[in-house]
Amino acid sequence: MKFLEDRIMKDGQVRPGNILKVDSFLNHQLDVELLDEVGRAFYEKYKEAGITRILTIEASGIAIACMTAQYFHVPVVFAKKAKSRNIDGDVYTSVVHSFTYGKDYTITLSKKFLGPEDKVLLVDDFLAVGKAMRGMLDVCSQAGARVAGIGIAIEKGFQEGGRILRSEGYDVTSLAIVDKMTDDGQIWFR
Amino acid sequence: MKFLEDRIMKDGQVRPGNILKVDSFLNHQLDVELLDEVGRAFYEKYKEAGITRILTIEASGIAIACMTAQYFHVPVVFAKKAKSRNIDGDVYTSVVHSFTYGKDYTITLSKKFLGPEDKVLLVDDFLAVGKAMRGMLDVCSQAGARVAGIGIAIEKGFQEGGRILRSEGYDVTSLAIVDKMTDDGQIWFR
Repeated sequence: MKFLEDRIMKDGQVRPGNILKVDSFLNHQLDVELLDEVGRAFYEKYKEAGITRILTIEASGIAIACMTAQYFHVPVVFAKKAKSRNIDGDVYTSVVHSFTYGKDYTITLSKKFLGPEDKVLLVDDFLAVGKAMRGMLDVCSQAGARVAGIGIAIEKGFQEGGRILRSEGYDVTSLAIVDKMTDDGQIWFR
Repeated sequence: MKFLEDRIMKDGQVRPGNILKVDSFLNHQLDVELLDEVGRAFYEKYKEAGITRILTIEASGIAIACMTAQYFHVPVVFAKKAKSRNIDGDVYTSVVHSFTYGKDYTITLSKKFLGPEDKVLLVDDFLAVGKAMRGMLDVCSQAGARVAGIGIAIEKGFQEGGRILRSEGYDVTSLAIVDKMTDDGQIWFR
């Protein structure tokens, strides 16, 4: 999608280690008009898919999920990264390795909010190696829910997450795919 | 606000230890139509206040903040609960004690997203003892930003957070104030 590529070129910053900083509009400060466009793009792609729930993972995925859910008129469910005392009853869990934070964490999702009757659109801000997405797919599998599609704002196309998910048959829609970045700030899109 | 009280009566659940579970619509599964009403209510209250940014804290605050920001046409900034490798440069930090998780954590907010030119609306899903809100106010103070108001979905009126904030002169708008809950599931609103 041109609008997101344009915004990345305008406000994104490349940092050593293949880090793409988009914290001025996507994952620290949030431009809700831009996120609304992201949500609308996912809706255009999946509006005929019979989506019943938008699934994401805290924290920045929540913003995209809410904007997307406004178009679908379905609930958001977000997987939590820490087990709260406030969550009781049965939960699905999956262990995820975070390269950003350099450690494993367990995601949890209450069983009452996802089941075999659900047709799910998974959304997240980034797809790189795909570990967080793998955790969400694991949760969907445990729930018996069908995965209708995966909506990603920015895919790091030079990492293997998207390629592997597509090879497994998942319908991955990435609005901007970065194929290459260089430390002097240049970005190539697919 | 009647709409939120009605929803709490319909779908909220009281748990021993003064826990009010609203995870089916406010902080695990998210009803975006309801959150939109929350955002609109905050807008009606503060639309003349010259708000430049909506500030919240991850994770569930993000949903309410995004819905609110759509009305104000200003960015959301959310304080992070863990320092990511992806955050570089100068950050404001504040230490917050979480009663839900039973430990202290440090919130961080990049200095470039909040400054003395800002007039801020702080929003969150819950206000109880007020520790998270205190951390956000500390960040605003460090930034020199003015706090125009505090928008809360559910205030636990039997805990002291709201009373103390109001006594300090903050304009706290809570859409539902629970004055008493009993373990058999009864809830009294202010």
